[in-house]
Amino acid sequence: MTRTEFSPGSDDIYKESLALHALYKGKLEIHSKVPLKTKSDLARAYTPGVTEVCREIARDRKLAYKYSLKANTIAIVTDGSAVLGLGNIGGYAAIPVMEGKAILFKEFAGVDAFPICFENYETDFVDQVKNIAPVFGGINLEDIAAPKCFEVEDALQDIGIPVMHDDQHGTAIVVLAALLNACKVTGKKYADLNIVICGAGAAGFAITRLLRCIGYDPRVCTRVNEIIVCDTQGTIFRERPGLYKNKYKFIIGEETNRPALAGSLADAMIGADVFIGVSAPGLVTEEMIQSMNKKAIVFAMANPVPEILPDLALRSGAEVVGTGRSDFPNQINNVLAFPGIFRGALDARATRITDEMKIAAAHAIADYIPRPKKDNIMPNILDKNVTKAVAKAVRTAATSCGCSRSVD
Amino acid sequence: MTRTEFSPGSDDIYKESLALHALYKGKLEIHSKVPLKTKSDLARAYTPGVTEVCREIARDRKLAYKYSLKANTIAIVTDGSAVLGLGNIGGYAAIPVMEGKAILFKEFAGVDAFPICFENYETDFVDQVKNIAPVFGGINLEDIAAPKCFEVEDALQDIGIPVMHDDQHGTAIVVLAALLNACKVTGKKYADLNIVICGAGAAGFAITRLLRCIGYDPRVCTRVNEIIVCDTQGTIFRERPGLYKNKYKFIIGEETNRPALAGSLADAMIGADVFIGVSAPGLVTEEMIQSMNKKAIVFAMANPVPEILPDLALRSGAEVVGTGRSDFPNQINNVLAFPGIFRGALDARATRITDEMKIAAAHAIADYIPRPKKDNIMPNILDKNVTKAVAKAVRTAATSCGCSRSVD
Repeated sequence: MTRTEFSPGSDDIYKESLALHALYKGKLEIHSKVPLKTKSDLARAYTPGVTEVCREIARDRKLAYKYSLKANTIAIVTDGSAVLGLGNIGGYAAIPVMEGKAILFKEFAGVDAFPICFENYETDFVDQVKNIAPVFGGINLEDIAAPKCFEVEDALQDIGIPVMHDDQHGTAIVVLAALLNACKVTGKKYADLNIVICGAGAAGFAITRLLRCIGYDPRVCTRVNEIIVCDTQGTIFRERPGLYKNKYKFIIGEETNRPALAGSLADAMIGADVFIGVSAPGLVTEEMIQSMNKKAIVFAMANPVPEILPDLALRSGAEVVGTGRSDFPNQINNVLAFPGIFRGALDARATRITDEMKIAAAHAIADYIPRPKKDNIMPNILDKNVTKAVAKAVRTAATSCGCSRSVD
Repeated sequence: MTRTEFSPGSDDIYKESLALHALYKGKLEIHSKVPLKTKSDLARAYTPGVTEVCREIARDRKLAYKYSLKANTIAIVTDGSAVLGLGNIGGYAAIPVMEGKAILFKEFAGVDAFPICFENYETDFVDQVKNIAPVFGGINLEDIAAPKCFEVEDALQDIGIPVMHDDQHGTAIVVLAALLNACKVTGKKYADLNIVICGAGAAGFAITRLLRCIGYDPRVCTRVNEIIVCDTQGTIFRERPGLYKNKYKFIIGEETNRPALAGSLADAMIGADVFIGVSAPGLVTEEMIQSMNKKAIVFAMANPVPEILPDLALRSGAEVVGTGRSDFPNQINNVLAFPGIFRGALDARATRITDEMKIAAAHAIADYIPRPKKDNIMPNILDKNVTKAVAKAVRTAATSCGCSRSVD
């Protein structure tokens, strides 16, 4: 299959996108919120008045939330090591994606977001993020290759502001939301599901963790019955030679695939209730869908070209099909999650984004559809009330789990 | 003298400034320049369209100027080690000043500027700035203590985008502009001037370098006759014990004070044509002004409280007096320089800010006043046409010195 065959709008959308970016020279601009016309305005916003604001924050740095952009501003941080499906294209080529994400944050959640693109993949990512933290109330990590993304996110959990790698958790949250509603549609019981996840990178690992409660607080998380994760070598199982070399795949081997099935993706899919693809175009065939359990749920989310096209999956017997794309029903896209998550976290002045907050976000998205149907399990990604519902749920969860701070 | 005695608006302006900052929660916000209402808007600004924009920049990173915010965006970078007159108060307490500067950039020059405040003074500043460079078309260094500021700025001159420490060069440029016009008013010849500079930090060193052509291209720079620089120990002279310990003071010792006068500030000022203060409140007395040459020029720029109040300096015989403050005539403030300098550098897509560009900026500011008078040697800081004149001069200088790149 060629790129144009599957690509929504194909070459036209690429040309239009280049033209748009050239016309506006990027997508972000920075404005003053305060008046700046007279000498009095200057005296209040800059010198000499600002001196006192600095003194106050020097006295108590938490006052940066009260007197500066920190309360409403996050960084979108990348090293450009895993941008879209393009791989390690570096900090420069990643800018348009980070700008795009930033304008979504503003449009959907009123969050001011600014791109930080590291030039050098070899950067000591953790130290650098810590060092730029003063002006930011949160950090959205983006497009960082696995397994570095896991290590970096873990190492940044205690810096006092929420840090979340959206490719992991944003994706896992919308998948959980879609799965909850797909269960309602198919009558399958969540705890009985047997799931195949194709892709063991950032998204695949995070989805596996969330659906199997790996590392999650069991009081807030419900496990599905079984997950088998596949990577380019086939199924991941505990005894697979060399598995220990990648700590995160080793965890997958320990925590999933109890039957220790060794085989291909096709082997894994036989009898499965759910296929979740976060991998590459066209990996799934009609036969593989036909081999699944009745009323199969298929989320083929490789972007922009899915593992199998929805029409083909439905013709092959799948009951509910979702993709990451806007031109098919059931768009499973993390824009439903990340703006509301950071909005809620900032509103609660949360110090981190906890399991409770992520799971609350997933339920808020699922519950936004009162009566899910085969072709309507997910809210419209342009509906900003979804963001509001997610933000509210996340803020409440942050408060109830005790990780929010008093807000002036 | 107390702070309130000298402070413009005193406690009232501080209270107003705190109230303003609390009301707006800081001063900056981030907006989208592109429409983002429909799925087509999303497809062009974000996925899938943005993929092609990323591919183009991956092919040639210079295209970041064409397709991203880079063309019009600079970072204002600090470690908070020398903020206003408050000293090393750190990255958090520095935020309000950086935000203030950012809104001035936007208001005066249409430049999008974003604050980068490092948490840790021990940061490897140079590596960190290099690593965040992709999204920025220029770097304004700000409020960094000497001598670190000199080392950092030097080390960042070859990263391909203009990097300028405004506390040094912005200040030196406006001082040169003021001096050019003060010469016209007093009839003194620039090349004959004997100058005392009080303060050997970032601003003092940069003023000394520019007025004495130290390290400057002699083809574009004219030297004054003599400069004597004073620090807290008195005059700096070549044989002063221990001078070699500070490389930058050692350079001052080598290049100024040819008579090797050892003494106090008062000793240095006897017979001087010009006093330039970038030091601390109230260091200059009536007697010291009286001891200067006829038609003395006094720029008392300690902020917010000058080395001597203008009324007192004039009563003591000074002919032309300037300060950094807006509530006296002849405000020598770098807001006259920095927005236009970066505007011109971005417009030329300059790779650095050269001597020619700095000197062109100073002449543009001076020439903006067609007939300077005692109480009118500097343009009004709110006059945005000054920024335009500076930007034009800087762009022309960048082009003629061959450090600009072709612009699409």
